[in-house]
Amino acid sequence: MNDQSPSRRSGGRSARREARSTKLADHLRPIRAGMEGGKYKPLSDIDVEKIHQAALTALETIGLADAPPSGVEILTGAGAILGDDGRIRFPRALVEDSLAKANREVTLFSRDGKNDLDLTGQRVHYGTAGAAVHLVNVEGNEYRESTLQDLHDAARICDVLDNINFVQRPMVARDILDTMEGELNAIYACTSGTTKHVGISFSEASIVPHAVEMLHQIAGGKDKWLERPFMSNSNCFVVPPMKFATESCEVMEACIAGGIPVLLLSAGMAGATAPSTIAGAITQACAECLAGLVYVNAIAPGHPAIFGTWPFGLDLRTGAMTVGSGEQALLSAGCAQMHAFYGVPGGAAGGATDSKMPDMQAGWEQMCSNVMGGLAGLNMVYEAAGMHSSLLGFCHESLILSDDLIGQAMRCVRGIEVSDETLALDQMAQVCMGGPGHYLGTEQTLGRMQADHVYPSHGDRTSPKEWVELGKPVLIEKAKAKKEEILATRSAARFDADLDREIRERFKIHLPV
Amino acid sequence: MNDQSPSRRSGGRSARREARSTKLADHLRPIRAGMEGGKYKPLSDIDVEKIHQAALTALETIGLADAPPSGVEILTGAGAILGDDGRIRFPRALVEDSLAKANREVTLFSRDGKNDLDLTGQRVHYGTAGAAVHLVNVEGNEYRESTLQDLHDAARICDVLDNINFVQRPMVARDILDTMEGELNAIYACTSGTTKHVGISFSEASIVPHAVEMLHQIAGGKDKWLERPFMSNSNCFVVPPMKFATESCEVMEACIAGGIPVLLLSAGMAGATAPSTIAGAITQACAECLAGLVYVNAIAPGHPAIFGTWPFGLDLRTGAMTVGSGEQALLSAGCAQMHAFYGVPGGAAGGATDSKMPDMQAGWEQMCSNVMGGLAGLNMVYEAAGMHSSLLGFCHESLILSDDLIGQAMRCVRGIEVSDETLALDQMAQVCMGGPGHYLGTEQTLGRMQADHVYPSHGDRTSPKEWVELGKPVLIEKAKAKKEEILATRSAARFDADLDREIRERFKIHLPV
Repeated sequence: MNDQSPSRRSGGRSARREARSTKLADHLRPIRAGMEGGKYKPLSDIDVEKIHQAALTALETIGLADAPPSGVEILTGAGAILGDDGRIRFPRALVEDSLAKANREVTLFSRDGKNDLDLTGQRVHYGTAGAAVHLVNVEGNEYRESTLQDLHDAARICDVLDNINFVQRPMVARDILDTMEGELNAIYACTSGTTKHVGISFSEASIVPHAVEMLHQIAGGKDKWLERPFMSNSNCFVVPPMKFATESCEVMEACIAGGIPVLLLSAGMAGATAPSTIAGAITQACAECLAGLVYVNAIAPGHPAIFGTWPFGLDLRTGAMTVGSGEQALLSAGCAQMHAFYGVPGGAAGGATDSKMPDMQAGWEQMCSNVMGGLAGLNMVYEAAGMHSSLLGFCHESLILSDDLIGQAMRCVRGIEVSDETLALDQMAQVCMGGPGHYLGTEQTLGRMQADHVYPSHGDRTSPKEWVELGKPVLIEKAKAKKEEILATRSAARFDADLDREIRERFKIHLPV
Repeated sequence: MNDQSPSRRSGGRSARREARSTKLADHLRPIRAGMEGGKYKPLSDIDVEKIHQAALTALETIGLADAPPSGVEILTGAGAILGDDGRIRFPRALVEDSLAKANREVTLFSRDGKNDLDLTGQRVHYGTAGAAVHLVNVEGNEYRESTLQDLHDAARICDVLDNINFVQRPMVARDILDTMEGELNAIYACTSGTTKHVGISFSEASIVPHAVEMLHQIAGGKDKWLERPFMSNSNCFVVPPMKFATESCEVMEACIAGGIPVLLLSAGMAGATAPSTIAGAITQACAECLAGLVYVNAIAPGHPAIFGTWPFGLDLRTGAMTVGSGEQALLSAGCAQMHAFYGVPGGAAGGATDSKMPDMQAGWEQMCSNVMGGLAGLNMVYEAAGMHSSLLGFCHESLILSDDLIGQAMRCVRGIEVSDETLALDQMAQVCMGGPGHYLGTEQTLGRMQADHVYPSHGDRTSPKEWVELGKPVLIEKAKAKKEEILATRSAARFDADLDREIRERFKIHLPV
């Protein structure tokens, strides 16, 4: 096609389609990681204060059991009180002091510097997380055990999806039986699949020094690692209600020693391990994470830590976990508001579904908590993509479709710009009085085409007639094709050959070269 | 099963399942029509004021063209100014006066009194609407022309779905060629299918007196109709940008004469018939609806009118309408805030999707605008259920699934209750210190089981194992079965035989007796 072709003229339909089919430069994208949320406030200011006071009271009067000996020493050294009942209680002043010491300017780094996550204010980021034990095989309509390759593939897919901002390990490699091997391979599988920030979870402190060694290799030295730690550890440091997870606390200490940012994860289930009320579950999660913040800052003031209040829902009829409900969306949105109140970087779960397959239920459940979490200003929306079956299954096709879903949620977070230009009174006057009587094709309209509007990659906007002409495309089939396309392409995140050899010499890597 | 059976004991799993399988009495339901939204505010107070001022300026300086002669008389009589260019302009004081006169206490009545819609404050209601020309035949994976029977079936389905609060005619009967016959039959099809509030749309003023006659028959007399008008008219009284729809204004006048509440519907498309910016599209819609409010209140001060700012989105690449986007959700949520500012009952579109079938895209798009509309406090969320293909297709199965989807959105609107009881400090202390270490089965937990939690009717919460044991149920199949069950049951909304005969004697009704 030459430049004189009429369809290349500015404003032509095919020119517009073409303009959109080339990927936009990052600074031109209408949405990006880290847009500010917070326009949705599920709690009043008084409610927030009540929850905070209740959390302080819980810490002061109930406290937490089961700290490891090291933790007892650290916490009592900081001013906490060990009771005869073995519970550690936290004076209010200690908590307030720790909050004052806590790092409020956390950046979670990417490996290539292009996807750093600035967690200040109410900036919103979406990513994967979890520990699913199944891979959802859409093709075969079945759940099967998840493997290391599945995890690596998930990281590779995330790497090319614009709206997945970080990759916390969403499933476990059930084909590796040895715990240490499994966790070290998980680091390899994630970091060799994506240059975005990666999250992992260690189950034993003894693994951490080995992991740190691998991180130094990947970073190109200890200094480089410490300068831009591109991996954080998801630390289930409590066993709700109000007990420290002894081993996980030791892991946390080891992570801090190794310069690994920590996610202080309190995953209570409302009605089982947390109160059944939304307010109660949020209160307990806040109390637990405040205890974690005291712990971290007593060891290393200002160590990057994410306030991970992750209360989950429960189907009270069956006692089964449920993550796709409206109650879940409220739990996470309410937590986001508490994070903003504390002024610390925070995260919670959003975007997971109870559905087994990427169907209509998955769509509505994933959107509900994703968009509400974003509007509430959640810094880190974990489990935002691909997570099915109440966290038991991870689905690559669903992950791909979530890029559209989350893109839409991000558009909502971006919100409504009101200015003289956007109020458009001048346009209205021109168009109505002596003008064409419509806004189609005006300079102002075309100027907004890319700047303001998010277009789905797989979502369908055809008319019924076009849909028939296209052979009635099926959403899931489009996602499958995309998955195959991504996985057939050589990943840009791959380690170079020398580094890869070096890692494989030191560690037993289960993925093929 | 006798009462001594262990599984009947309080707290037993099957007892709890059983408790939930019986339908809850209305006052015990955790969600209901008319819960207050408004915790999500996409616009700042200053933004709201700017939009209002811009709308006033547009009315004052641009005005609206194409009023019918009667409208010119009515509006200039009230203080509007007819310009040499044929446009009617509205002094600011006239608009403010009309706002002061407008009815702020509108109730949209149901036929049986059980589903009246109180539109004061930011009470939220969800229902159908639209003028789809296709029925989405899920079974056949096809779109076909919609019929009167399809419309009647939709009304019957809505009648038994708890979370569909009103039934505005969602599709047109393409099997009736005569306009008047079609519209009169649409009233019959809707009102004989549901006792909930019904909405309709007349295309010619001459039809209205006949419709009123039918409404008097159904109500049991003119007085009874005027006492509780159970049907409103959706009045596309403007052709955006800023032109009156001449014939529709005449329809509106006739409706007011007949005591029919009106929905002042301004359905601009951002980028085509409204500015491409969200703020601009909201501004123009507000200006147009304010003109409508002046019109209505100049004829009959206090006549029930709904401020129907319905700006829609456009895919600026193709010029095609799109209703499922994040931009759409922001348009409608922003409008909700303007309605609250004006203090008048308002409505906008939410819950429609661009997808052809009830798939994952349909789920995420329908949830996005439904939940954001609700959280923003939209009194009437129109098009909330069953609407596909950018308003071109209506789907019964999707409508059924929307009952779960909207139920979840309503749970979010209900929000988080914070009180000493819900903060649950006492429970936390009991459970943690000397208690069982969990909240399962406590009195407080069980007490919340029905009071707080919304359980999906069709949404799946099984584990992968249970899912396999159940034969891997498919969501859409469940909806299909439910549809068949509903339509095989004799409708409680059916007219009694005498009334039905009376109506059929007077009107040519196309539905079989």
